[in-house]
Amino acid sequence: MKDTTAADRSATDGGRAPVVAIIGLGLIGGSLGLALKRPTPGDAGPMVVGWDQDRRAGDRALQRDAIDALAADAADAAARADAVVVAVPVLAVREIFEQIAPALRPGAFVTDVASTKAEVCAWAAASLGNAFIGGHPMAGSERGGIDQARSDLFDGATYCLTPELSTPAHVLQRATRFVQDVGARVVTMSPTAHDRAVAAVSHLPFLLSTSLVDVTMSDPEWEAFRMLAATGFRDVSRLASGDPRMHHDICVTNADAIRPWLLRAARSLEALAAMLDDGDAVLQLFERAKHDRDAFLEETGRLSNMGE
Amino acid sequence: MKDTTAADRSATDGGRAPVVAIIGLGLIGGSLGLALKRPTPGDAGPMVVGWDQDRRAGDRALQRDAIDALAADAADAAARADAVVVAVPVLAVREIFEQIAPALRPGAFVTDVASTKAEVCAWAAASLGNAFIGGHPMAGSERGGIDQARSDLFDGATYCLTPELSTPAHVLQRATRFVQDVGARVVTMSPTAHDRAVAAVSHLPFLLSTSLVDVTMSDPEWEAFRMLAATGFRDVSRLASGDPRMHHDICVTNADAIRPWLLRAARSLEALAAMLDDGDAVLQLFERAKHDRDAFLEETGRLSNMGE
Repeated sequence: MKDTTAADRSATDGGRAPVVAIIGLGLIGGSLGLALKRPTPGDAGPMVVGWDQDRRAGDRALQRDAIDALAADAADAAARADAVVVAVPVLAVREIFEQIAPALRPGAFVTDVASTKAEVCAWAAASLGNAFIGGHPMAGSERGGIDQARSDLFDGATYCLTPELSTPAHVLQRATRFVQDVGARVVTMSPTAHDRAVAAVSHLPFLLSTSLVDVTMSDPEWEAFRMLAATGFRDVSRLASGDPRMHHDICVTNADAIRPWLLRAARSLEALAAMLDDGDAVLQLFERAKHDRDAFLEETGRLSNMGE
Repeated sequence: MKDTTAADRSATDGGRAPVVAIIGLGLIGGSLGLALKRPTPGDAGPMVVGWDQDRRAGDRALQRDAIDALAADAADAAARADAVVVAVPVLAVREIFEQIAPALRPGAFVTDVASTKAEVCAWAAASLGNAFIGGHPMAGSERGGIDQARSDLFDGATYCLTPELSTPAHVLQRATRFVQDVGARVVTMSPTAHDRAVAAVSHLPFLLSTSLVDVTMSDPEWEAFRMLAATGFRDVSRLASGDPRMHHDICVTNADAIRPWLLRAARSLEALAAMLDDGDAVLQLFERAKHDRDAFLEETGRLSNMGE
C-alpha cells in the first residue's frame, strides 16, 4: 500500500505535497483536517484546503489549523485537490457532488463521510462515475461542530469504505491510505451491506434511545421519575441528544433498512412484557444477553481503542 | 438533623461509637462500608460489622477495610448494631429480615438497598414492623462484587428512602443521616411511587438495552454488523452486561410496574416505523427528544456529580 501511495504522490505535480480538499468543516470534516495535519516524522503531510457554506466554520477551521487554506466554494476546493472528502449532511451531499464534478482534476478521487451509503453511491455514480468511493468513519459525538473537532477522533476507530464492482483498484488503495493517515482501521463492505449493518448497530440504538426519552419524559409523573434517574438512564438516553437533522437525514435515506429493526425490537419488548412472570425465561434471556454483550465488548476491546 | 443524631449517638451504650451492620458485602454493601469508614475530621465514625454468605467476600471486605469485624451470621451482625443495612439481592431480603428480627437491639433501625420497594416493604412490615425504612441508592455498576467496591460510589448520588405513614420520625431522621454519611443526597418517596419511577428510568432502560443485544446479536449477519458497531451501540447496550440475577429479581418483584412501560416503548417503536417516510414528523420527534434530554442532563448536572 505504501509503495502505491508513494508512486501516487510523485505522480502529482512534480513532487508537490498532495492536496486534500475537505468540503464541510463540522465535527467530522474538522477532525479529518486536524488528523491529517498532525506532525509525522519524515512526512510533511498533505496540504489541506477546506470549504464550508458557513463562513464562520471556515474561519474557525483556519484558526484551529484544521485546514491550510479556505477555498471560495466547493468547486474551487475540488479543483485544487488530489483527494476530495465531502463531509456535509447526507441530504446536502448530492448537490455538492454535482458542483464539484466539472472541477475535478484528472486522477483525483472523491469520498464522503455520510452515515448511509446506498443512496449516496447512486448519486455519485450519476455525477462522479468511477472517481468515487463511499466512506463512513464509525466515530463521532452527539456534540457536533468545528469547535468539537479533535485530531484523535479517528484513532483506532473503524472506518468503512464501500467499494462497488466498478470501483478502480487505485481508488480503493488511495482511499485506504487516506483512512490510515487519519488513524483509523479500514473495513470494506458493499453499500447495501453497510446500510443493513448500521441500521442494526447505529440507527436502531439511536431510535431506542429516542423512544426512551419520548415515552418517559412525556409522562405526567416525569418530575418524580427524574429524581431517580441515574447513570443507566443517562447512558441509554445519550444518543437522543444527537443532531436531529443528521438523524433525520439518516432515517430518510435508510428507512427500508431501519423499519424491520424497529418492528423486531417492538416484538422483542412485547415478548418481554408477556414473559415477566416466567422467572426462568427472564433469567435465561438476561444471561444470554450479558454473555453476548460481554463477548462483544471483549472482542471490540482487542480490536480498537473503543474499550470501556 | 445533626442535633437529633448527636442525641441518638449519646443514647447508645454510654457514648460508645455507633455500630452499623452491613449484611451482604457485594458492590453496594462493600462501598457503603468504605464510604462510612472514610476519615472525617472530628468524628471517629461508626464501627462497621459485616457478614456475607460467601466467606471469601467477608474476608475480602476485611482486607479492604470496608468493615471492622466479620460477624458469624446475619443475626449476630444485627445483634451488635444500632443501624442494620441489608444489602443482599432482592429475593434474599425476606429471609434475612426473618433471621435478624429476633436479634435486633431496642431502638435499632433497619434499611435495605434493593432496587424495588413495595414488596420489600411489605415483607419488612411482617417481620420488622416500625424499625424498618426502605432505601435505594441510585448508584451502581454493571460490574458487581466486593472487588469493585469504591468509597466514592455514592458521592453526590441520589439515595431514595421510602418512608410509609407508619414510619416513626426518628427512623427517617437516622436513615437520612446515614445516607448523608455515605455522601449521597436523600430523596423520599412512597414505596409504590418509587417502583413506578424506577420502572421508567431504570428497568425500562435495562430492558431496552437487553432487547437491542437480543435482536441484533442473534442475527445471522451479526459478524458483519459487529465490524461497524461503535460507541453508540456500546453505550446503549451497556446495561445488558448487568448482573442477570439482580435484574431477574427486579423484574419478578416489579413486573406490574414494568409491563406497561415495555408496551408503551413497543408502541413508540411501531409509530416510528410507520413515520419514517414522513420527514417532518421524524425531525420534530428528534428535536423534541434532544431538547428534553439536553434539559434533563443540564438539570442533573446542576444537582449532582452525574454530569457527562
